[in-house]
Amino acid sequence: MHQNGLRSAEARLAELKGRLLEISDLAGAAAILTWDQATYMPKGGAGARGRQCSLMSRLLHERKTDPSLGRLLDQLTPYGESLPPDSDDAALISVTRRDFEKAVRMPAEFVERLSAHSSASYDAWTRARQIDDFATMRPYLERTLELSREYAELFAPYQHVIDPLIDDMDEGMTCASVRALFAELRGALLPIVRGICARPPADDSCLHGQFADGAQLELGLAIAKAFGYDLDRGRLDRTHHPFCTKFSADDVRITTRVYQDDLTQALFSTLHEAGHALYEQGVAAELAGTPLGSGTSAGVHESQSRLWENMVGRSFGFWQHFYPKLREAFPGQFGNVPLETFHRAINKVERSLIRTEADEVTYNLHIILRFDLELELLEGRLHVKDLPEAWRARYQSDLGISPPDDRDGCLQDVHWFSGCIGGAFHSYTVGNVLSAQFHAAALRAHPEIPGEISGGRFATLKDWLGQNVYRHGRKFAADEIVRRATGEAMGIKPYVDYLGRKYGELYGLDSLAPT
Amino acid sequence: MHQNGLRSAEARLAELKGRLLEISDLAGAAAILTWDQATYMPKGGAGARGRQCSLMSRLLHERKTDPSLGRLLDQLTPYGESLPPDSDDAALISVTRRDFEKAVRMPAEFVERLSAHSSASYDAWTRARQIDDFATMRPYLERTLELSREYAELFAPYQHVIDPLIDDMDEGMTCASVRALFAELRGALLPIVRGICARPPADDSCLHGQFADGAQLELGLAIAKAFGYDLDRGRLDRTHHPFCTKFSADDVRITTRVYQDDLTQALFSTLHEAGHALYEQGVAAELAGTPLGSGTSAGVHESQSRLWENMVGRSFGFWQHFYPKLREAFPGQFGNVPLETFHRAINKVERSLIRTEADEVTYNLHIILRFDLELELLEGRLHVKDLPEAWRARYQSDLGISPPDDRDGCLQDVHWFSGCIGGAFHSYTVGNVLSAQFHAAALRAHPEIPGEISGGRFATLKDWLGQNVYRHGRKFAADEIVRRATGEAMGIKPYVDYLGRKYGELYGLDSLAPT
Repeated sequence: MHQNGLRSAEARLAELKGRLLEISDLAGAAAILTWDQATYMPKGGAGARGRQCSLMSRLLHERKTDPSLGRLLDQLTPYGESLPPDSDDAALISVTRRDFEKAVRMPAEFVERLSAHSSASYDAWTRARQIDDFATMRPYLERTLELSREYAELFAPYQHVIDPLIDDMDEGMTCASVRALFAELRGALLPIVRGICARPPADDSCLHGQFADGAQLELGLAIAKAFGYDLDRGRLDRTHHPFCTKFSADDVRITTRVYQDDLTQALFSTLHEAGHALYEQGVAAELAGTPLGSGTSAGVHESQSRLWENMVGRSFGFWQHFYPKLREAFPGQFGNVPLETFHRAINKVERSLIRTEADEVTYNLHIILRFDLELELLEGRLHVKDLPEAWRARYQSDLGISPPDDRDGCLQDVHWFSGCIGGAFHSYTVGNVLSAQFHAAALRAHPEIPGEISGGRFATLKDWLGQNVYRHGRKFAADEIVRRATGEAMGIKPYVDYLGRKYGELYGLDSLAPT
Repeated sequence: MHQNGLRSAEARLAELKGRLLEISDLAGAAAILTWDQATYMPKGGAGARGRQCSLMSRLLHERKTDPSLGRLLDQLTPYGESLPPDSDDAALISVTRRDFEKAVRMPAEFVERLSAHSSASYDAWTRARQIDDFATMRPYLERTLELSREYAELFAPYQHVIDPLIDDMDEGMTCASVRALFAELRGALLPIVRGICARPPADDSCLHGQFADGAQLELGLAIAKAFGYDLDRGRLDRTHHPFCTKFSADDVRITTRVYQDDLTQALFSTLHEAGHALYEQGVAAELAGTPLGSGTSAGVHESQSRLWENMVGRSFGFWQHFYPKLREAFPGQFGNVPLETFHRAINKVERSLIRTEADEVTYNLHIILRFDLELELLEGRLHVKDLPEAWRARYQSDLGISPPDDRDGCLQDVHWFSGCIGGAFHSYTVGNVLSAQFHAAALRAHPEIPGEISGGRFATLKDWLGQNVYRHGRKFAADEIVRRATGEAMGIKPYVDYLGRKYGELYGLDSLAPT
């Protein structure tokens, strides 16, 4: 009897895995359509592509909410609970069940409506942003706001309308917990920003000049490869707004954008996306094709992109190794620039307009004001028509400068124009906080890491992250990953210590030394 | 009553069109996956991509064979028959019904098996061809042969096992009609080839040298654009084996391959694929998203690629306009080469090994021997293991040369390694024959066309083809298109006349003058 019961559970588990593989393959196929839309699609393709993306998301949703999948999960739940809690299969059953219960809250017609709208909005945005045309985007954004509220409603009751949107990105976090984190962080950041901005600004003129596209792309890719990004299972293409995407466990791609007059755009966005890709490529092969086979949360994902982009890619030791290569690629530009000058330039702190170009220190102020604007929009305290003005006002008050147009104002980020309002931005700052926490833990375990990085070797760091973060995929939730990897709960101290130490040194400010 | 009946038919027609649009969108989505596989996919992606393509083809097949689609078509057939026979809706109902009746003969599991096998075989071939490894491909090809026979069996009874495979490409043609056409053509070609090969060979040394990739791609694309290929609704990428593909009416893409030491590869394959793309871009907008919304048969499609590649792209008048541009792109190479020498070089006739590089005259000998080998394989008179030897023997007897390896022998073409054996090649020669027939008809209607082409203007020719061929899509079958456009049935005379006139002049052979 016991034997029969087990066999039958195993057969059901095999059936579940078969269904999940099909869902994963279909999601990968849908991702190909989106990737092509953002990289190579000619503009005429937009109309049909919108329908195609919408169709794919409907097909996907049908499979994710199939009542027979629900019955299978019901049948498997007791079996899952009988397994060791840390086993892959126990996690698979419980995570899949949680995903299913969320998915069935969303009617198919809503999913399709949201997908079609997002696709049309994204397409319009790629053109409107170029010509600073907020008027065209206003009705799209109003509709996005309605759809975002409608989305939240599907998961009622909630404490705050943004909670379901946050939970999608970072399960377990809420408006209250994000607000608390942001308040504490802002309190710690303000004196740092104030201290730095009282000092003479760093000279970053060496970063501006004429840099050939091909050489920029090659350099970024060479570094990504050195980090451990596997190009047999990935590739780099150009786009408007860089992203990392996954078509399958063995096809994880990154994109970047190249500005001929600004070296840092392509370079650091490539390193950033490579960090995301390392995470996805590092998930254990046995989790591939299941809901456990990808990164655990947006915040933890962002911690990896920021760790490789900033804690590695903007460190002095890293450039001790790579600066000679940069000089080779652009001899006219850097032949007479000392490494120290270059390092100060790529870590220049200033109050600026563009989030993706912001330095590590002020970056979080860009995020916090976006989060606040999302709350105001969702709560109805701010109307879409007043967004450009509210954006300018917040930049003026928080960063002391204000954008001359909407192109570099509220049209600058893709997020609101290709998805919901709410849940879009907070993960970046969660990621910054966690990046320092993981980095500090890796260095405690392997004090040799900084020395290796100065020699262009990244294997120890990548392997520690692989063992402690990447391989687990979604097997453990974010808070569990953080606790297991670092021995503590999420907290801002390692991040604030890191900023204080690094920028204290760079700007000669003793007051920033870690407490 | 009559009014009610009509309204109900119109509602059903709207339902039909909705279903067909979804099928068309899904087919376009599947095409994106295949395009990416052949252009940008990293090698690690192959495993999952095979599953994804197979899944997409299953989803597509489910929709194409949905019994409720059959019932809808049954209900609509009397309505379709009540409409003017030349109306779009009458054609839509009858063509869709024919497609449905073919599709339901194919079990879903077979479609999936074939698709998975094709994908795996294609992936293996891209590697095996490079290292001349027929042994690896042999079991794939044996399986392909079995699947091809199994496929034909689904459409039994037939006169010849290849008939169903031919019908898929060129509805209405059979083994018997292709054999008759090929016999007549071979009889006409042999004296032409013999006559030319008795003369001193043309000097094509100017075509070999070092040609930068970028300049080659730019030149081909500039010409495709001049032909009328709309880059807002298309693009050019690189691949192993050039093709044209369609994701939607407004996203029709071409691919090419670049050889740095041979200018003609990228140039003429780009022009060839642009011909296919002009056809797909030229289908009437109101047929988009339905089974009528693409080219009517493989043979008519190929007539367009060959017309633009050869009858336009290898004509003297065309190069009167474009040769100065070619010289600008590669000044070192062509600065001292007279136009006449270049024109003779790109029309050099010789007995050679590679189909895609063959001249217009011998090209059909490459096709006819492949068709014969397909027949032998399908009939069981030839075993896959003996294919390399049979290939060499046929090249020796038909073309007087024999490949030194399988890479340039039976591994050279993608067709057998990515689809069925049978039906893969005959359309190329059908296309050659039809290209001359359409070209002659266009010149009868517009004798000014050659003069315009010498001035780099293609609108009159493109518009005539658009009006007489492209816009109809699949509304008319191939024989009907040919009859309407040219006033006669398909026949070899215009093609043989064209070859005789052109090559008689080039090689100074009066005996080749048209009869």
